[in-house]
Amino acid sequence: MISSDIKALTFDVFGTVVDWRNSIAGEAETILGKEGVAVDGQALALAWRAQYQPSMEEVRAGRRAFAKLDILHRENLLTVLDSLGIKGLKETTVDHLNFAWHRLDPWPDVVAGLTRLKQGFILGTLSNGNVALIVNMAKNASLPWDVVLGAEVAGAYKPDPKAYQNAAALLDLEPAQCLMVAAHNDDLVAAAATGMKTAFVARPTEYGPDQTKDQKAEHIFDFIAKDFLDLADQLGV
Amino acid sequence: MISSDIKALTFDVFGTVVDWRNSIAGEAETILGKEGVAVDGQALALAWRAQYQPSMEEVRAGRRAFAKLDILHRENLLTVLDSLGIKGLKETTVDHLNFAWHRLDPWPDVVAGLTRLKQGFILGTLSNGNVALIVNMAKNASLPWDVVLGAEVAGAYKPDPKAYQNAAALLDLEPAQCLMVAAHNDDLVAAAATGMKTAFVARPTEYGPDQTKDQKAEHIFDFIAKDFLDLADQLGV
Repeated sequence: MISSDIKALTFDVFGTVVDWRNSIAGEAETILGKEGVAVDGQALALAWRAQYQPSMEEVRAGRRAFAKLDILHRENLLTVLDSLGIKGLKETTVDHLNFAWHRLDPWPDVVAGLTRLKQGFILGTLSNGNVALIVNMAKNASLPWDVVLGAEVAGAYKPDPKAYQNAAALLDLEPAQCLMVAAHNDDLVAAAATGMKTAFVARPTEYGPDQTKDQKAEHIFDFIAKDFLDLADQLGV
Repeated sequence: MISSDIKALTFDVFGTVVDWRNSIAGEAETILGKEGVAVDGQALALAWRAQYQPSMEEVRAGRRAFAKLDILHRENLLTVLDSLGIKGLKETTVDHLNFAWHRLDPWPDVVAGLTRLKQGFILGTLSNGNVALIVNMAKNASLPWDVVLGAEVAGAYKPDPKAYQNAAALLDLEPAQCLMVAAHNDDLVAAAATGMKTAFVARPTEYGPDQTKDQKAEHIFDFIAKDFLDLADQLGV
């Protein structure tokens, strides 16, 4: 494929751009520690994330009206806290922990990589995170997005094709002019099914050192890069 | 008011951020000149802009489903070309001229002003321009927006209150945490009615040297600034 046909790069965010696991683990230990609650932050982060797909599936399956991710995250957090036997937290503490998703740290290559990629392409988020979450994260971590697209704007959670189609439509681009960048094979397969180009960037420790899924590209994608700087090299920017 | 309560600045774009009149006039003379058509660019720009509010009013009044501004602009351009007796242009030429709205130049203080304001606040567009128009303009003119909000995302054209309310909701902010920045009294009055804070920045030649409207703030606004640098001074960034 000819990279000059690509006008926009659309990014998955959780796992691809930011290391949610270590960020959430650290925030959980700090915030709950101040309340006198000792917790295994890594276990809490993984348990919280395990609720993510099932909660969105309620929306995708039509059993629930679209609700933004901040709301799903908070419901899921209450479930996890309950399962860990953590009780009696103030509402403001729960909120503060919930908004840790707005403060996730990027992988080390991300800011330098995006800064290069921004010279040649429109950079958009195509995340299941809601707009405020993505905007606050970007301010906190200096992520230079040109536009925030994705689930809340589309009213649909990936891998619903509407999420990808809405992003291309809002940019007034053909899907093939959009390059979906993700660390997850499933996300890229769904993007490709709508006509988007695809770039796999491995994040092999997203779920921890024992991660087995998404260690490498399992399908034919247009680009396979080891990080965002490598992707910039391959795209010639 | 206390500026520390403000989290986001939401900007009107046409006239407030960019000088549409001189940009469109220049593009029209260049693009049509190449087709052998001599035209008064200033007159064309003003005639085209005169169709703007009436075309959006069809949507606001419910007589037409929401259509993005690129579509309204193109319909209005055909009306204007017809009124000027300009016939037989290629579709690609009409499209190229229509997309001149994606290439508008900012007022001289804008890039430096936004760069300062971005240090302290979320910067969002709250324009009737569609997402692609605003994103392409930003890439072309180096406008450092954090997020593109406004009519297309809201499905409503300002001054419909839904346009302002949608922007605050997507940012998960109270309207009073958003400062609407505009060169137009009417836009700020409508924003204030939804609870937003307001900043008037005069652009006294937006419509030309004989402009009479919007020479100054005609209501009590929270800030009145002579340009974006002055606004940054007043907001302490």
